[in-house]
Amino acid sequence: MIDPHMSPEDFRRHGHEVIDWIADYWDTVADQPVLASVKPGDVAAMLPHEAPEHGESFDAVLADLDRVLMPGITHWQHPRYFAYFPANSSPAAILGDLISSGIGAQGMIWATSPAVTELEQVVLDWLARALDLPTAFLNSEGGPGGGVIQDTASTATFTALLAALHRATGGTARTTGVEPARFAIYGSSQAHSSLLKAAMMSGLGEDSVRTIAVDPGSQAMSVPALRNAVAADRERGLTPLMIQAAVGTTSTGGFDPVADLGEIARDCGAWLHVDAAWAGVAAVCPELRWVNAGVGEYADSYVTNPHKWLLTTFDCSAFWVRDRAALIGALSILPEYLRNPATESGAVVDYRDWHPQLGRRFRAVKLWTVLRTYGLEGLRAHLRSGVELAAHFAALVEGDDRFELVTPPSLGLVVFRAIGPEQLTMDLMEAINASGTAYLSHTKVEGRAALRLAVGGWRTTRADVDLTWRELGRLLSS
Amino acid sequence: MIDPHMSPEDFRRHGHEVIDWIADYWDTVADQPVLASVKPGDVAAMLPHEAPEHGESFDAVLADLDRVLMPGITHWQHPRYFAYFPANSSPAAILGDLISSGIGAQGMIWATSPAVTELEQVVLDWLARALDLPTAFLNSEGGPGGGVIQDTASTATFTALLAALHRATGGTARTTGVEPARFAIYGSSQAHSSLLKAAMMSGLGEDSVRTIAVDPGSQAMSVPALRNAVAADRERGLTPLMIQAAVGTTSTGGFDPVADLGEIARDCGAWLHVDAAWAGVAAVCPELRWVNAGVGEYADSYVTNPHKWLLTTFDCSAFWVRDRAALIGALSILPEYLRNPATESGAVVDYRDWHPQLGRRFRAVKLWTVLRTYGLEGLRAHLRSGVELAAHFAALVEGDDRFELVTPPSLGLVVFRAIGPEQLTMDLMEAINASGTAYLSHTKVEGRAALRLAVGGWRTTRADVDLTWRELGRLLSS
Repeated sequence: MIDPHMSPEDFRRHGHEVIDWIADYWDTVADQPVLASVKPGDVAAMLPHEAPEHGESFDAVLADLDRVLMPGITHWQHPRYFAYFPANSSPAAILGDLISSGIGAQGMIWATSPAVTELEQVVLDWLARALDLPTAFLNSEGGPGGGVIQDTASTATFTALLAALHRATGGTARTTGVEPARFAIYGSSQAHSSLLKAAMMSGLGEDSVRTIAVDPGSQAMSVPALRNAVAADRERGLTPLMIQAAVGTTSTGGFDPVADLGEIARDCGAWLHVDAAWAGVAAVCPELRWVNAGVGEYADSYVTNPHKWLLTTFDCSAFWVRDRAALIGALSILPEYLRNPATESGAVVDYRDWHPQLGRRFRAVKLWTVLRTYGLEGLRAHLRSGVELAAHFAALVEGDDRFELVTPPSLGLVVFRAIGPEQLTMDLMEAINASGTAYLSHTKVEGRAALRLAVGGWRTTRADVDLTWRELGRLLSS
Repeated sequence: MIDPHMSPEDFRRHGHEVIDWIADYWDTVADQPVLASVKPGDVAAMLPHEAPEHGESFDAVLADLDRVLMPGITHWQHPRYFAYFPANSSPAAILGDLISSGIGAQGMIWATSPAVTELEQVVLDWLARALDLPTAFLNSEGGPGGGVIQDTASTATFTALLAALHRATGGTARTTGVEPARFAIYGSSQAHSSLLKAAMMSGLGEDSVRTIAVDPGSQAMSVPALRNAVAADRERGLTPLMIQAAVGTTSTGGFDPVADLGEIARDCGAWLHVDAAWAGVAAVCPELRWVNAGVGEYADSYVTNPHKWLLTTFDCSAFWVRDRAALIGALSILPEYLRNPATESGAVVDYRDWHPQLGRRFRAVKLWTVLRTYGLEGLRAHLRSGVELAAHFAALVEGDDRFELVTPPSLGLVVFRAIGPEQLTMDLMEAINASGTAYLSHTKVEGRAALRLAVGGWRTTRADVDLTWRELGRLLSS
């Protein structure tokens, strides 16, 4: 029988080639159009109908990577990628993730590879301390809380909701299911779509979600509006189940007043979940710790994504709970084939009970390589650079009477528009994205279109921001 | 400001080092104990209390990888790793995943990187054709079906359940939530624990799951028992929502009779989900196509994991549905900031609507590099080698009167026990795992302990199986 596997020598050779390919890609990506210009089906049309019968050389695969796939790639690591939020990678994270692939350990329970679980516990404590999160969240302090790496903030929010449901029902939700029209969930009109999706998936349904108005200026949840909604629900006999506070909304980077929401949650017994997916990591910088104000005192759960602005290759979403009993209560399963002495002893954490999946990748390695090689000092420099570049861009907008800021700049995010008819702003976005110079996304604020420029890539410089600004001006005039 | 990022030269140098580290690891892993022997807390105790203030060299990180982490790693890529199911990696998959990290594109919608979506559609069609799955499942045939890469089979099963719920309620489940005590879900006593977890997470509750008895010999679901359970539920006014057929159960590799279950599902209107997480990929070999018998005619959804036995680094779970409308109906969300012309045109697929998460990694690359560099021929050789080695081990068990087969060998899985008191088998497992020679896991079959030897690693040879067998015999005599 032929050996179909790559020989160790070939793995070394091709591995070095791929590393060099990545380094070359980063060297040249700034010269590429940010946004792929392919049409639907273009990439698929260049690929064969079937998998090959006989194995091909890895060189042939790399050649097709360049020829077939790369024209269809929108470059998230481009220095002028400003759309949505950054999903930035970094050299350290990529090598960390490569190590995790090479080891190929699966950490569903402590016993299947103890280092997978323990490194995750430790680096989440490192991150919690770096963000000045409450001691109650730490894995290592012997308290009831703890942290886990989820794939995405959507999953974190979903599991927070399941934990809230478990707590509110004394555990009956997992056995007999949810009861209809008993619970209400609260998020602002600017809450991430994953809150609605979590309600849909949990069996509570979209109708259980109350969309609370925001204050027009801050785009933060209106506290009186929340208080009224909670009171109205209670009057109708409904139980407030969970309040979600957005720390850095997706549209405009608005900040819900966590402490005020927390007071209301405390009064009505609701779970307070804080979605700081993008903005939370900013708290590595002491001068930005205000973003997490109120979390320490009030949050039952909290999520922030190192895979957005903290240089850790997707996927890596850091999720903490003040009391892991509700989370584990909602998600634990122990089939015979997973029984083992370490689990029975109670001395270990089995992370499979902290999320929907059973199998889990060794994601902690990439967060570890990032935290160690950057150090907190390096991370602060990266975050501050994003904030400074956003402030610089905001000043350019403010100084030009053809444009206006829609909301005050928020950390690395600037929301602005061209002054004039509604369509002008959307046309400008289409034009700059089609130009290839930069990639911006849009939103609507108080019903009107706005553009979002989200800085956060690790190689974005002032020159990139300036070039984008000049191109926006040129396109507007043309 | 100092630049905290790794220079391109340093990235190349350290990248080559990590590639070489992995090659060296594979070269030497067979000499390591398979199972880590650390005690709870050992790894954590060797790690600092806090992240470093100043960035450290990548060399220091690599040194700690060896010194601190590796003693706590149970080696899933060890040639004598026989526990649970294989989660095998391969050189090609690791390089594919590295490419995906390097590109760092996020494919939540087609527009955010078209190649991410289109390569996934194409390689899932390749895999579906390689497994001889029904044309109805293909992405490219213009029909209502389609395939997507989920992280794990647990997520696939959960989304299948949500799709079933969407179809059965005409969509009201997502808006008004699930109704209590209306639906019933069916799986055998050998169904994977993720079925129960899906019921818990969906709001239906564990009590909605009927645990159907299996035939003692085959460990396959008893068709009369299922028929009776369905009839009893209908008599009580409940609606059969989903029947899960296990194709290769976790404990013993048993095969539920998919066509028989499908007939019952068709009669009562239930969704038929086929969980072939481990065994399904065997159908790449024409002589093993029987594993998927009945799927073509009856399955509403089907999952098999290339990250188990098909050489694709975790996570990569291939999931197909016959009608994507129910899946998308249950999971779609379209906030303003994700609106875009390609989506509105209907000409593209936005995979965010196919799973719980919003963000998604470019997982298709690793499946592409595996399918291309192995070719179907290479994959068949790999799978056949696992089946042959399991048959060889089973013959050794059968030829020794101190041991017995508990069930007939199933593909790469052998379930056996030491003849004698119950504790003998468990003690033998503890002993061989503690010896470091091999790692086996256990289960219970008809209430009695049994050991599982699951072959599937890409470097497992006859010598590894023979060594394990000799060690088992030695430990039993000692």
